[in-house]
Amino acid sequence: MSGIGSRRGFVSLVGAGPGDPELLTRRAAARLAGADVVLYDALVDLAVLDLAPRAQRIFVGKRAGRPAVRQEFIHRLMIRAARRGCAVVRLKGGDPFVFGRGGEEALALTGAGVPFEIVPGISSAIAAPELAGIPVTHRGVSTGFVVVSGHAEAAYRGILENLAPQSCTVVVLMGIGGITDVAALLVARGWGLLTPAAVIFGAGTAAADVWTMTLGELQRGIESSDSTLPGTVVIGDVVRLRAAIAFDAADCEAAAR
Amino acid sequence: MSGIGSRRGFVSLVGAGPGDPELLTRRAAARLAGADVVLYDALVDLAVLDLAPRAQRIFVGKRAGRPAVRQEFIHRLMIRAARRGCAVVRLKGGDPFVFGRGGEEALALTGAGVPFEIVPGISSAIAAPELAGIPVTHRGVSTGFVVVSGHAEAAYRGILENLAPQSCTVVVLMGIGGITDVAALLVARGWGLLTPAAVIFGAGTAAADVWTMTLGELQRGIESSDSTLPGTVVIGDVVRLRAAIAFDAADCEAAAR
Repeated sequence: MSGIGSRRGFVSLVGAGPGDPELLTRRAAARLAGADVVLYDALVDLAVLDLAPRAQRIFVGKRAGRPAVRQEFIHRLMIRAARRGCAVVRLKGGDPFVFGRGGEEALALTGAGVPFEIVPGISSAIAAPELAGIPVTHRGVSTGFVVVSGHAEAAYRGILENLAPQSCTVVVLMGIGGITDVAALLVARGWGLLTPAAVIFGAGTAAADVWTMTLGELQRGIESSDSTLPGTVVIGDVVRLRAAIAFDAADCEAAAR
Repeated sequence: MSGIGSRRGFVSLVGAGPGDPELLTRRAAARLAGADVVLYDALVDLAVLDLAPRAQRIFVGKRAGRPAVRQEFIHRLMIRAARRGCAVVRLKGGDPFVFGRGGEEALALTGAGVPFEIVPGISSAIAAPELAGIPVTHRGVSTGFVVVSGHAEAAYRGILENLAPQSCTVVVLMGIGGITDVAALLVARGWGLLTPAAVIFGAGTAAADVWTMTLGELQRGIESSDSTLPGTVVIGDVVRLRAAIAFDAADCEAAAR
């Protein structure tokens, strides 16, 4: 806590990316190296914390079977540490502003008069498909993409129920549990049962796993997985490109090591 | 060109992020440091190239008043350099798979039997608003976002014409030229004229500039700008959060320097 008393505290809201420490930004790594305190979520790979050797590390994510740390408590921790003069890193999986409640935390800091910055991270919305060899846009196949959270129907129905069939790529974050409902909604809207889909677990980690299927199969449900890895679902014709892009990429990355 | 003859060539399709060299990933920086050849676009900040001191640097982007380098020519350059044993970095602004033609380049490399990898970058679709203090998602305001390219009406009409008014955040990349058409389409679909919007030029660079307005104003056209900086447009209620988030963030970042 070198900073106590000697300077004004500061909070960096930092995106950690999908998991691989090499996919942090250079700024994120610099902030971790200089941090006195790191508040981190369950989505953050523990190897990322090794980049903050000086810091006190505080876990504020959800743990299975336990209630989540309340958001207001996270706000209080950040504010208190900053007021004590600490360099605080609030480290979030992916990007702080993509379903990360980073906006709420920024508003809390503003309200408390605590200086802060936002450091974007690689979002799994784009990078999970990408690392699996699936481009969310591709000339002649998809000219745009939609990103929703699948954790509650109210969060995606208003967006997905109007999307014209096959008009774009659909990415669902945090939606493994309710993915059959998402698929049923798209099918009811007229999306073809044979529309390709992919479910990506643990993107950007050594344990990454990719399942491909059709929208019809997705609607019938994916085999329950014991995996506690976060899952990203991609639906759309771009998934077909994986066969050509990813197979070789995987080979080649192995060859390059 | 240390690698010629001594090892197999390799291509890294690398996202350079929105401009600031500090927003490159650690892996992107490592690939640049080890590169023999870097092929880069107009969207890449020249300061980023300083991270590749050993490399031959080849500009393959569009320059005002000149025809763009043909995509097939870029493919041939990459393939030829890799076959000569070079470590090749194909450096693209933002993320390679978000309107970056990265998928096409990956397929060309696959077809030529050239080993490659994909290194995701921070996409301006999320980071341009973010660095301006606008979260693309925010609890109670926006539960998802749509990303389209604004360069041609055919590229976005099929997606935007069905979006229920105010149902999500809309991000338009590469669309400054035709943004009045995008705005008119949303207004025709029933989006309120008072829906807030922001136009962000040069996100992640020292020259960054943010204009906020209403959808109605956007429909009447933005003042023509001499700026050659790339522009990102964000439309949706999340833009209102900027007043609280960005003002302080800008102050605070300045204070932290």
